[in-house]
Amino acid sequence: MRTQVVIVGAGPAGLLLSHLLGREGIDSVLLERQTAEYVQSRIRAGILEAGTVRLLREAGLGDRLAVEGMEHRGIYLQWPENRHHVDFVDLVGRSVTVYGQTEVTKDLMAAREKAGRPAYYSASDVTLHDVTGSPYVTFVDSDGAARRIDADVVVGCDGFHGPSRAAIPAPQVWERTYPFAWLGVLADVAPSADELIYAWHPDGFALHSMRSPRVSRFYLQVAPDEDVARWSDDRIWTALAERLGVAGWTLRTGPITEKSVLPMRSFVATPMRYGNLYLAGDAAHIVPPTGAKGLNLAVADVALLATALTASLKHGQDELAAQYSETALRRVWRCTHFSWWMTSMLHRHGDDFDARLQLAQLHRTVTSEAAAKELADNYAGLPL
Amino acid sequence: MRTQVVIVGAGPAGLLLSHLLGREGIDSVLLERQTAEYVQSRIRAGILEAGTVRLLREAGLGDRLAVEGMEHRGIYLQWPENRHHVDFVDLVGRSVTVYGQTEVTKDLMAAREKAGRPAYYSASDVTLHDVTGSPYVTFVDSDGAARRIDADVVVGCDGFHGPSRAAIPAPQVWERTYPFAWLGVLADVAPSADELIYAWHPDGFALHSMRSPRVSRFYLQVAPDEDVARWSDDRIWTALAERLGVAGWTLRTGPITEKSVLPMRSFVATPMRYGNLYLAGDAAHIVPPTGAKGLNLAVADVALLATALTASLKHGQDELAAQYSETALRRVWRCTHFSWWMTSMLHRHGDDFDARLQLAQLHRTVTSEAAAKELADNYAGLPL
Repeated sequence: MRTQVVIVGAGPAGLLLSHLLGREGIDSVLLERQTAEYVQSRIRAGILEAGTVRLLREAGLGDRLAVEGMEHRGIYLQWPENRHHVDFVDLVGRSVTVYGQTEVTKDLMAAREKAGRPAYYSASDVTLHDVTGSPYVTFVDSDGAARRIDADVVVGCDGFHGPSRAAIPAPQVWERTYPFAWLGVLADVAPSADELIYAWHPDGFALHSMRSPRVSRFYLQVAPDEDVARWSDDRIWTALAERLGVAGWTLRTGPITEKSVLPMRSFVATPMRYGNLYLAGDAAHIVPPTGAKGLNLAVADVALLATALTASLKHGQDELAAQYSETALRRVWRCTHFSWWMTSMLHRHGDDFDARLQLAQLHRTVTSEAAAKELADNYAGLPL
Repeated sequence: MRTQVVIVGAGPAGLLLSHLLGREGIDSVLLERQTAEYVQSRIRAGILEAGTVRLLREAGLGDRLAVEGMEHRGIYLQWPENRHHVDFVDLVGRSVTVYGQTEVTKDLMAAREKAGRPAYYSASDVTLHDVTGSPYVTFVDSDGAARRIDADVVVGCDGFHGPSRAAIPAPQVWERTYPFAWLGVLADVAPSADELIYAWHPDGFALHSMRSPRVSRFYLQVAPDEDVARWSDDRIWTALAERLGVAGWTLRTGPITEKSVLPMRSFVATPMRYGNLYLAGDAAHIVPPTGAKGLNLAVADVALLATALTASLKHGQDELAAQYSETALRRVWRCTHFSWWMTSMLHRHGDDFDARLQLAQLHRTVTSEAAAKELADNYAGLPL
């Protein structure tokens, strides 16, 4: 079997790339290790940058997003006895939209089925071959049959643990693990505030977020090796009320439907192109979730790559493809720095001097227009 | 002997306070452990914020500063193959002025002598008494005579090692020592650039600065326990040329007249007022020299304190004095954070991931107007 682009990984990055290439008349085949149901239900990010929203709309993926997405003007920054609104629209003229990764994936899957673009789910033993020459990928399909797909190009959208990055010999790698994790909680209860609340607290960071008008999402800073079993619903609500509390505000509670511990890591691997193999999203870089860059950064990679591959495969112009790694990495490092900065500012770690630096930075961010703009510009997202 | 204000320490902070109080008709006596010659020749900071310059001018101390001070529109930020100008005047409408602490001290000493305000140099065994009641200070004067001065108020401008802070029982203290130091070098050579150059380099930070049109000042990041004897003039010039080098630029060299290793520390002690004892400058807080905040922060404390003590001692209004510690600490924490930030961004420390974060921050600072403004606003100095 032959196609123009084999895309390893059918998460939002892979699906979007397949969609964007398809609109340009470029054929692709998606290979996914998991089942479609698994991919669709994977709870991850929930905040879309202004540029991500525009790209999805322009790609014909904006119908449900327009109805169900919740546009937010900004975020709240909080520390004890202080809650301040940072208004991105006032500061930089851009908003963000709350729309879960599960919903983006659902829209992309529907578009894929409608367009009839091929995808192999439950594909095992996915292996990349000859990526600097005439690339092909072998795998075992869900029926147990060994298959081979030849292509002009292979794109790794297969996340941190996927096989694509391993096909690049001796990549340069930067990594940071943080001395804390997030306990993520999903609850069937209306959000307790109109926007996200990022709260610094002596007990640790807390985040109030939401997935819909009826579903709230919360995060609590915990130890990296935290046992989720130690967090009863009661303990979770008590901790959230304490860390998110300010006078005159009440936390709404409801049935908790999901709890899990999310590790926090920064990771960048270069190059993002090796011969005819390209990496996009988590396959090449991981950011900690503070600042909501992960999905948006994957979308930015894919947008760049779709343009570059279209120029190369459709028009024979290889310049953008040749520059892909360098161009993509400029945004990667910007977002890596921003995510590290938000994470470092908001999580309790280090000593009391660190805590005072964090509080000084938080106070400055809500009192200096330049500092607030710098946060808003990065959070609402740089131009694609 | 009795006076209204005993000022412990006759460095620039103490001298300026005595000067400002004198202009309001408030009597003070200065006590200094060192000789006048020692104090005058102590080489320290060299950059005055816009607000510091204005205050000195308005206090009648601006004549020589107007002639010899070198106004700078901004600074250069540099990393390998990059040198970018950050123009404070364009960004925030304020400049800075290069005028050594030795020169400020000289002007203040001349003003003190002219006004005939009393000062005891070479005062030993300075001890503070009854600071929460009717305070007095005992000491041994330069002739070996034991003396006692009673006062309404005692102000500690006696630096990090002085006795004043020790008179506050159980102050709250925050401290950070950095895993590097500065090798400071004074050279009889014209500056090699019109403004300061802050250079990030894989070998370590370097700073090009100046004291006059004929005297350059340089700093090199070294180990905290660095032996200055290991740095020959040749080695210093080679390291400076390497770390400060960019294409088309030449480092001027000349006779080195002074070398010393400066430790880097952040330190804050609270409260800054205890009964009738007030602390100002290094007695209460130390910042690392990156960002040139030390002297300016001391001047800001003194400006606040002169106003507060004038209101209290001349008009019987104690409100500003009661708020002094809280008000002063807002700026202290702002400058502590800024100095830590500049230091952390520019010095080689940690791992390669830290280096990439530093380079991402540097790149952002010279490409985002908001980020550049945030640097400029802090460096040129917040309003007094």
